[in-house]
Amino acid sequence: MTLDPDNWTDFRQQSHRMLDDMLDYQQHLRERPVWQPIPQAQREHFTVPLPQTESTMAQAHARFMESVLPYGPGNTHPGFFGWVQGGGTPVGMMAELLAAGLNPNLGGRDQMPIVVERQVLQWVRELFRFPDTASGLFVTGTSMANLIALLVARTRALGPSVREQGVAGNRLVAYTSQAAHGCVAQAMDLAGLGFSALRSIPVTASFAMDIAVLEQTIAADRAAGLQPFFITGTAGTVDVGAVDDLEAIADIAARERLWFHVDGAYGALGMLAQDVAPQLAGIERADSIAFDFHKWGQVPYDAGFILVRDGAQHFATFASPAAYLRRDERGMAAASPWPCDFGPDLSRGFRALKTWFTLTVYGAERLGQMISDTCRLARYLEQQIAARPELELMAPVALNIVCFRYRCGSDDAGRVNADIAADLQESGIAAPSVTTIHGQLVLRAAIVNHRTTEADVDALIRATLMFGASRCATSHD
Amino acid sequence: MTLDPDNWTDFRQQSHRMLDDMLDYQQHLRERPVWQPIPQAQREHFTVPLPQTESTMAQAHARFMESVLPYGPGNTHPGFFGWVQGGGTPVGMMAELLAAGLNPNLGGRDQMPIVVERQVLQWVRELFRFPDTASGLFVTGTSMANLIALLVARTRALGPSVREQGVAGNRLVAYTSQAAHGCVAQAMDLAGLGFSALRSIPVTASFAMDIAVLEQTIAADRAAGLQPFFITGTAGTVDVGAVDDLEAIADIAARERLWFHVDGAYGALGMLAQDVAPQLAGIERADSIAFDFHKWGQVPYDAGFILVRDGAQHFATFASPAAYLRRDERGMAAASPWPCDFGPDLSRGFRALKTWFTLTVYGAERLGQMISDTCRLARYLEQQIAARPELELMAPVALNIVCFRYRCGSDDAGRVNADIAADLQESGIAAPSVTTIHGQLVLRAAIVNHRTTEADVDALIRATLMFGASRCATSHD
Ligand SMILES: Cc1ncc(COP(=O)(O)O)c(C=O)c1O
Ligand SMILES: Cc1ncc(COP(=O)(O)O)c(C=O)c1O
Repeated sequence: MTLDPDNWTDFRQQSHRMLDDMLDYQQHLRERPVWQPIPQAQREHFTVPLPQTESTMAQAHARFMESVLPYGPGNTHPGFFGWVQGGGTPVGMMAELLAAGLNPNLGGRDQMPIVVERQVLQWVRELFRFPDTASGLFVTGTSMANLIALLVARTRALGPSVREQGVAGNRLVAYTSQAAHGCVAQAMDLAGLGFSALRSIPVTASFAMDIAVLEQTIAADRAAGLQPFFITGTAGTVDVGAVDDLEAIADIAARERLWFHVDGAYGALGMLAQDVAPQLAGIERADSIAFDFHKWGQVPYDAGFILVRDGAQHFATFASPAAYLRRDERGMAAASPWPCDFGPDLSRGFRALKTWFTLTVYGAERLGQMISDTCRLARYLEQQIAARPELELMAPVALNIVCFRYRCGSDDAGRVNADIAADLQESGIAAPSVTTIHGQLVLRAAIVNHRTTEADVDALIRATLMFGASRCATSHD
Repeated sequence: MTLDPDNWTDFRQQSHRMLDDMLDYQQHLRERPVWQPIPQAQREHFTVPLPQTESTMAQAHARFMESVLPYGPGNTHPGFFGWVQGGGTPVGMMAELLAAGLNPNLGGRDQMPIVVERQVLQWVRELFRFPDTASGLFVTGTSMANLIALLVARTRALGPSVREQGVAGNRLVAYTSQAAHGCVAQAMDLAGLGFSALRSIPVTASFAMDIAVLEQTIAADRAAGLQPFFITGTAGTVDVGAVDDLEAIADIAARERLWFHVDGAYGALGMLAQDVAPQLAGIERADSIAFDFHKWGQVPYDAGFILVRDGAQHFATFASPAAYLRRDERGMAAASPWPCDFGPDLSRGFRALKTWFTLTVYGAERLGQMISDTCRLARYLEQQIAARPELELMAPVALNIVCFRYRCGSDDAGRVNADIAADLQESGIAAPSVTTIHGQLVLRAAIVNHRTTEADVDALIRATLMFGASRCATSHD
């Protein structure tokens, strides 16, 4: 009844063809459009009933090559500027093959894959200068990592009995900036505290949290008999890439005895880059840091991480005894504590391997240079924008995100820029996204992909000017 | 600054070697021990500082081959009986390669990978006879899927304002059986309701929820002014593989207007097997079903799934507007709603592809036969136990889990059986786990791997008798 191939020789040949196809794809990415609309006929291949009988792997692969590969989201391509997404690497791809073949479940037990995860944890501690007692865990992404941080802070604030009793009757309040990612509010919701217990502190002109307002708000909440417990500073905001003043937040958190969490979804790995790390000063004082290896780290999706200074508190939030999770001194059930003691997942894939391969093969220095380079390209884009009267910079460039717009005198500048974005995307030349800044719709270019060069930025500018001229002309009609 | 190889020809050669190594591993699995203890020297290769400089991929791979591959958790091996874990397949491995190479983020946007995920959702609806309006999502595993179900039910019970207001002041109570998995209680904790609001209903002799007690408990809670809202029935309990009476629970849930959730972590895919499906009758009446493709479905880790009958309620629990997640009619930001509107993850890997490949290449019938066959092997093991006076069956065999023990007159029968389990694991012959049933430590054999045959079951029996005789003799000394 095994699902292994009847004929390993045939299977091997087909597998090598599939590998070659993927290497061809990666080698010749630049020759493809960044993105292209999906023809209806392709979609319809994926609205069939559950297959009852068998197909060959070659048939399934042919369908993938025809219908899926050409219509991905575009983030592997150097012309992708759309969202804060990494491009992946061939090394990460090969590591995923190994992980899927070994197929471990990293929930627990005594196995080398978990030792590899602990190695990455040790590297993460080293990068952020956290003590050996700090705990950490791979998760899907920063949304989940932020939730875990909030839950550990909830345990510290309400005591371990919160697990038994729930949060009924709590008076907890948390703080973040208006520029924070929506998943911080989502974490409040999921944890039963509600959005209303999250204070959205206004931002300064540089889109960083207004520290004075933060202090006033905490004081007002205390005066109202509420229990402040958690501040999230952002290292690289999603819209414009701003970095909160983490030192100042650390000082306040220390004085007020609040949990200081950093959402460093993409920015935290800036610690690898000599010219970015100083902007993150204070991050090493956090109680917890959430970030993704799949963004600036270029590890294939998904590979989020949560680092918690107080490993014991982290363990106390998630560990639970269960007969089927019994630990032993020897045999497979040794080597406790297990990853499942530090997060909601029991079954867990081997995210650590692709990350270990990425850090080992490229090394911290080269990864840091690559990160610096995306920031250099953002400054280059900023210069190009400054040099064109048709274009206008819409937010200061702190890291690698550039918000700008095509100037168009008409009232529907927003509509014009939205059309430019969609035109660019559909053209396949370059793919920025749009966002809203001070109520205005703007183009947003996030430079995250290690493949992006000045030529790609030039192409973005050229095509923006071209589509802009034509859209703006029509809008005046 | 790209991380792409300088020399694609060399990279390609090395990649093909890595693929061959993994195919060799899978082809010759049987020649390896199921599991082996990790030598200290191997662990120490993974306690080094963060690498600053580069290595070749060949070097990283050599370390993997020497230090990681031989010391996995064992679940790929036909002699693995330890926990409810799938074995993976070479087809799933190849699909993961494709997914990692294309490297999409399935949070949102208009891209074929999400269309593939929607295809799998359609198949899941078809399998469980859910309407087209049902929603669903890949997640890491059933722990997360159960949490999502609970959160949607929380929204229904308290109204959408729970997201804003939190759960303070709620009087919610939920129900599951004593044999339920610990992650059901964990979900109550994470959602802010607390373990104490979960009633653990006793089980009958067959380890299924005692329906009469369930009814009495709901009545008592209502009388006490509490608000019953959620019942989790289990389709395949983790310890013994029992299936709750899902029809009876569905009736009660309908009458009492409670959310009926099924934790079918491994059991739900029994719907694919003609002789298992009838045991799951009533599952098609659930409000939500949580299950894993990485268990009985043999998809590589991780690939959990949540299916929700009321797609609108599901959407209302997670969707949120954010400027950077703006939807459009055309371009890349089209095709709303997106997966991020149905769960906590924004960045999400392409779990759908390995699942689509598995269902497409093997087809529902063959997967169903494979599942039936694991149950047949469990009955075979049961017969072998009955035929040996030294062995004793400790729980009825409902599906594919067999709990038994070596009879040893001494007081430390528990210690003897724990030692037998560790001896078996360290021997590399066969790897069962232990659990506790009616207060007694027992051996537990979960037959999930598609590679397992009668010969593997025979080897388990033989080795158990051998280690049992020697451990029991020593224990009498
Ligand atoms: C600042 C910030 N926080 C959180 C997130 C969410 O992270 P993830 O997509 O990994 O869940 C993002 C995503 O872009 C982000 O930029
Ligand atoms: C019945 C049951 N529910 C939930 C789980 C947890 O699922 P996962 O490991 O995918 O989180 C398991 C795991 O074995 C299980 O058997």
